[in-house]
Amino acid sequence: VPKTPYAVIMAGGRGERFWPLSNARHPKQVLPLIDDRPMIIMAVDYLQGVVPPDHIFVITSQDLVPAIAAAVPQIPSEQIIGEPVGRDTAAVCALASVLVRARDPDGVFCILTADHRITDLDVFRSTIRDAVTLAAAENCLITIGIRPLTPSTGFGYIEAGVSLDRNSGTRFFRTRRFVEKPNRETAQAYLDAGNFYWNSGMFIWSAKTLQTAFRQHTPSLARLIDELEAAVGTVTFTQVLATAYDKLKRISIDYALMEKADNIVMAHGAFGWDDVGSWPALAHHRPHDTADNVVVGDAVLLDSQRNIVFSKARVTALLGVQNLVVVQADDVTMVCHIDRAQDIKKLVQQVGAQEALRRLL
Amino acid sequence: VPKTPYAVIMAGGRGERFWPLSNARHPKQVLPLIDDRPMIIMAVDYLQGVVPPDHIFVITSQDLVPAIAAAVPQIPSEQIIGEPVGRDTAAVCALASVLVRARDPDGVFCILTADHRITDLDVFRSTIRDAVTLAAAENCLITIGIRPLTPSTGFGYIEAGVSLDRNSGTRFFRTRRFVEKPNRETAQAYLDAGNFYWNSGMFIWSAKTLQTAFRQHTPSLARLIDELEAAVGTVTFTQVLATAYDKLKRISIDYALMEKADNIVMAHGAFGWDDVGSWPALAHHRPHDTADNVVVGDAVLLDSQRNIVFSKARVTALLGVQNLVVVQADDVTMVCHIDRAQDIKKLVQQVGAQEALRRLL
Repeated sequence: VPKTPYAVIMAGGRGERFWPLSNARHPKQVLPLIDDRPMIIMAVDYLQGVVPPDHIFVITSQDLVPAIAAAVPQIPSEQIIGEPVGRDTAAVCALASVLVRARDPDGVFCILTADHRITDLDVFRSTIRDAVTLAAAENCLITIGIRPLTPSTGFGYIEAGVSLDRNSGTRFFRTRRFVEKPNRETAQAYLDAGNFYWNSGMFIWSAKTLQTAFRQHTPSLARLIDELEAAVGTVTFTQVLATAYDKLKRISIDYALMEKADNIVMAHGAFGWDDVGSWPALAHHRPHDTADNVVVGDAVLLDSQRNIVFSKARVTALLGVQNLVVVQADDVTMVCHIDRAQDIKKLVQQVGAQEALRRLL
Repeated sequence: VPKTPYAVIMAGGRGERFWPLSNARHPKQVLPLIDDRPMIIMAVDYLQGVVPPDHIFVITSQDLVPAIAAAVPQIPSEQIIGEPVGRDTAAVCALASVLVRARDPDGVFCILTADHRITDLDVFRSTIRDAVTLAAAENCLITIGIRPLTPSTGFGYIEAGVSLDRNSGTRFFRTRRFVEKPNRETAQAYLDAGNFYWNSGMFIWSAKTLQTAFRQHTPSLARLIDELEAAVGTVTFTQVLATAYDKLKRISIDYALMEKADNIVMAHGAFGWDDVGSWPALAHHRPHDTADNVVVGDAVLLDSQRNIVFSKARVTALLGVQNLVVVQADDVTMVCHIDRAQDIKKLVQQVGAQEALRRLL
């Protein structure tokens, strides 16, 4: 009988791309963005039958711990860990390896995020199971690649190499390289080539293999692991975490490891997957009306096409407008051109600056 | 010493063009649309030094009487008259003539609306004074024409004829004809011709002359006058008004009288004037930022141009949008393309239909 794997859900980030619905008090992970369930609940549900709640860790930012804990009470509260500051995904992976090794020195875990939308859950779950089996048997770092459906410029890509003959439903490949988000032309070339996959940011590995890779390629994270291992399970852990994170630079797991290591294997994730990182991305997962509008809540639209409306507790009335994202939050209404959704962060900064100024006056 | 004239302010209409700020509970006349004062207060102030409050009547719709009375307490409450239904401007003028004659059989009055913006008030007031003097001396119907500044297609026009030699600061003309709102080409021709004026919808006449004209040209309104004169000042007036209005067809004063009568004189109104009948028209009277946005209230704009924002009690945040009217009311936010503002009435109907449907379900 294989040992029960662990899962670590990355639920950090300030969710500025879902402003004004998401904010410090209402992080995106606890919002019902895709359907009526908060995204963190969906992330836990995806793992049903593969990883039980008592083997799931959630790593989030410190101030979001209470909201996350309230949303997923089935996860033991000591397994919801708050980062003192955000240091990108490599630090999360290193921290996760320490948490898992403290439970099981040979533990295997998958790492997922709370803002993915996964469909075909049977396929997803068997992919995780097959990858866990491989990660337990061999000294490799497994990443999940998704066959591209469009020449998307919003994802990084993985170039797959030779197929590995594993006796499983899931197909595994050696990887040739990880590439950053391409321009449209390059993305089209990747799509045409047929052996490029979207980098989903989901990984499966044993804690031990991951730590070995950090020691080989990323000294700063090897130091982090040493510092955290010395303190995990003690009352000083939070303080040690704060001190250690304070010294770290932000670095992604792709840059820290996946672009350098040579023992990487890609699992073909043959399930439905999307990164729901923005209002327009979110709209893909909601029903559209005949004029291609997505409306959540109470709205009246006249001669308006291709808009995204989130209207809670208020009525939104649109007349003769196209390609807008209109979001009503408690005390703010945002109206944004759909092509500018990636710049909402700048808008949030300006709102913050204006509020700060107003308090001074 | 000339007798003190009367004024009748038309303050009817449901103000749908200022929805969602204006609605049944908050008619446009009591909203601070142009500056911090409700429009009805501004309309009364325009008359300062010409018509005292106890000579001012306000004719509005029945359900708006309390709100109007609260806004202009200096006007005796019995002089704020509610119409049981709207029957357009000819009926208002006929009703006004009855109210004024009951106070003074030879009374002269001007009729104005509550949604005009007037500047150069000294010129406005002397124009009214000169017109009152003329209307008291001669059996004529006086209309005020405004020299067009642009080839506007939003106003009717008056073609001026020969100048009348009156010893006053105000210039008076015979009129050749009244024409309806023209298309752009015709409006340009009017502007070029030099003797076409905007039909401001402001009139000055004696009650007696007006009634004579109705008797001559518009039998239905002559009947209305007879029915109201028999009841004015009695307890049955409200009931008689309701019964008489019920039988009336909607007809404008232009169509009922001004296009037919031959004793019409046009006063050149050499003051600043605009019909503030819509959000875009209103924006002309508010300061613009460097990106040509008009913002009233609390808003943050990033890379956004030529928008009109009315944001009370909420924050409006715009990103990368142009030519929108965004209005935040108590429980509704409207987002409308600026070129579609004339269709807000249709949007209100759709909101109403949807609400009615919701109540049924």
